Amino acid sequence: MNSLRPALRQLHPYSLRPETARVRLNRNESPFDWPQEWKQALLERVQERAWNRYPEFVPRSLVSALARRWNWPEEGIAVGNGSNELLQALILATLEPGRSVLTVEPTFVLYALQARVAGAQVLIETLGTDLRYDAVHLGERLRATGATVLFLCSPNNPTGSWIDPDDIAELARRAPDTLIVIDEAYGEFAKRTVLELRPRPTNLAVLKTFSKAGSLAGLRIGYLCASREIVRAVVQVKMPYSVNFFSMLAAERAIEGRELLEQQVKILISERERLRTAMESMTGVRVYPSQANFLLFEVDDAQRVFRALLDNEVLVRDVSGGHPILSRSLRVTIGRPEENDLFLGALRQTMEEK
Amino acid sequence: MNSLRPALRQLHPYSLRPETARVRLNRNESPFDWPQEWKQALLERVQERAWNRYPEFVPRSLVSALARRWNWPEEGIAVGNGSNELLQALILATLEPGRSVLTVEPTFVLYALQARVAGAQVLIETLGTDLRYDAVHLGERLRATGATVLFLCSPNNPTGSWIDPDDIAELARRAPDTLIVIDEAYGEFAKRTVLELRPRPTNLAVLKTFSKAGSLAGLRIGYLCASREIVRAVVQVKMPYSVNFFSMLAAERAIEGRELLEQQVKILISERERLRTAMESMTGVRVYPSQANFLLFEVDDAQRVFRALLDNEVLVRDVSGGHPILSRSLRVTIGRPEENDLFLGALRQTMEEK
Repeated sequence: MNSLRPALRQLHPYSLRPETARVRLNRNESPFDWPQEWKQALLERVQERAWNRYPEFVPRSLVSALARRWNWPEEGIAVGNGSNELLQALILATLEPGRSVLTVEPTFVLYALQARVAGAQVLIETLGTDLRYDAVHLGERLRATGATVLFLCSPNNPTGSWIDPDDIAELARRAPDTLIVIDEAYGEFAKRTVLELRPRPTNLAVLKTFSKAGSLAGLRIGYLCASREIVRAVVQVKMPYSVNFFSMLAAERAIEGRELLEQQVKILISERERLRTAMESMTGVRVYPSQANFLLFEVDDAQRVFRALLDNEVLVRDVSGGHPILSRSLRVTIGRPEENDLFLGALRQTMEEK
Repeated sequence: MNSLRPALRQLHPYSLRPETARVRLNRNESPFDWPQEWKQALLERVQERAWNRYPEFVPRSLVSALARRWNWPEEGIAVGNGSNELLQALILATLEPGRSVLTVEPTFVLYALQARVAGAQVLIETLGTDLRYDAVHLGERLRATGATVLFLCSPNNPTGSWIDPDDIAELARRAPDTLIVIDEAYGEFAKRTVLELRPRPTNLAVLKTFSKAGSLAGLRIGYLCASREIVRAVVQVKMPYSVNFFSMLAAERAIEGRELLEQQVKILISERERLRTAMESMTGVRVYPSQANFLLFEVDDAQRVFRALLDNEVLVRDVSGGHPILSRSLRVTIGRPEENDLFLGALRQTMEEK
């Protein structure tokens, strides 16, 4: 089929092994489903609505609610079918052959994949052995390369590492012609968000989602906070009517129910630190600090431990094939306390069997 | 903001005027909402499902149901967030700077817009004054231009014109290196579908949707039928988890409830022909034949008639600014019989007032 682009042959598509288990700690989902009364009330509204009619062209009331939530201008907000869609739109709005993007490794693989689809050159900085971000070094690389876009996931998937918003402000100030994209999919689990920066850097684009702290991974809804100009360009390249009315209504409900969701976030943060402490005490386990709802940890034989956990009905993510620096690493999503206990028990047993 | 692509400045984003009215015949939606008992049963399943968990990576049961519905191989089917998402993925999989796409005018504006976003050259054939497709001429243009992709909407939005599947087979046969994309968003309202062609042309990609005949415009779900190779490339460039679980379940229900939906299609086809006959009898109205769920018609002063209809609470689509050949044209979606009567009454009154 000669019409397919030759460049695509070299790309590895995003894929996922189909394993499942009773305790699923592999996709960085929230372990808390919505309360039945929230669902019930929402589904009554959904039933009344005409399904044969398109969603609103611009979801005004959701955008207003997000603007109030983050104290961000309405015209600087775009809603998308998961933050993935807005990530792709940001790439299409900025990248083309002859332009380059700077990102790090290891990180969420879709930044580099989609940038290559757009024909851009992808420049990679590998994180140090402590897996931390080095803001000064990234700033130097931006100046040296003249990259059009910098993509950072913070807190970073799969490492859990974080870059301080003040460092991001400094990066943005020193590279005014670079678009600084911060993927804050896990932002609610971190100390601070870049959305609090004042003045707001005009070359900053922040991706947020309801999939993690909002407990709505099944519904696919995310949003972008940026300058009016960036949002206008994203809306220009993205497809219209990309968010269904059900997910829009659910996102509004999640903002209203913020108090409960924030309590759940607190539980998960506390559980994260409990797990980290417990794992640090295990011989043969090295666990990294995390600002997200997951922990990255190293063991001697990642594939053996992954399999042993799965044999105990605990599914984590084997990230050992993703990057040489991760060759001994697994990633565990923070679950409900009883799920975390099952994970800790299985891991302890596995490490003792070694 | 220097990081935005200069090429985007010349593009006009897709947008829609926010008018509304009691009788809305402007978006080619089905006028029939789903039966309350279908909604109820589906929402019970939705309530039981865990919203905090991602949808399936590949929606296997929906793909199987579509494969049975159209007698099409499962590995040649991809499901997307509306057919729009799959259209964009087809473009990203095939087009890049240095390649070209052939399409017609007037047609759905997103083909050319998205092809330009991908950096491709857009070659346009303007339809003749009868607004019909000329398959022989299109074949000649394909040979002369060596276009990588041919985009045809059939039945065509906004003209209602149609290209015979046998002519598409011939085009595909004579241009084996061109990807022939047929957007069949309105295919259920036409005499035949290209999905029936045997043998299946390997360079054919067919876009289908549940938004029109499936009465699910609010839910955003569409699909692509093509060769295994094309589907693999589309999945490679498209974002994962793009379809929420609610829309997936609804699409499966729509396939199960095909009998009712097909009865509604028959009503709409019969109403289309009733409207066409009635409009043909009006002085000052020229109406075009249509294989879709809408009619294109010409009047002396499209904007005056659009406003007069709106004053009578009937909203149609003013397409007169879309292309010089449409300078006197409006498009009316076929509604329920009583809505169509209101439209006919308002149009008759408007034409007599002239």
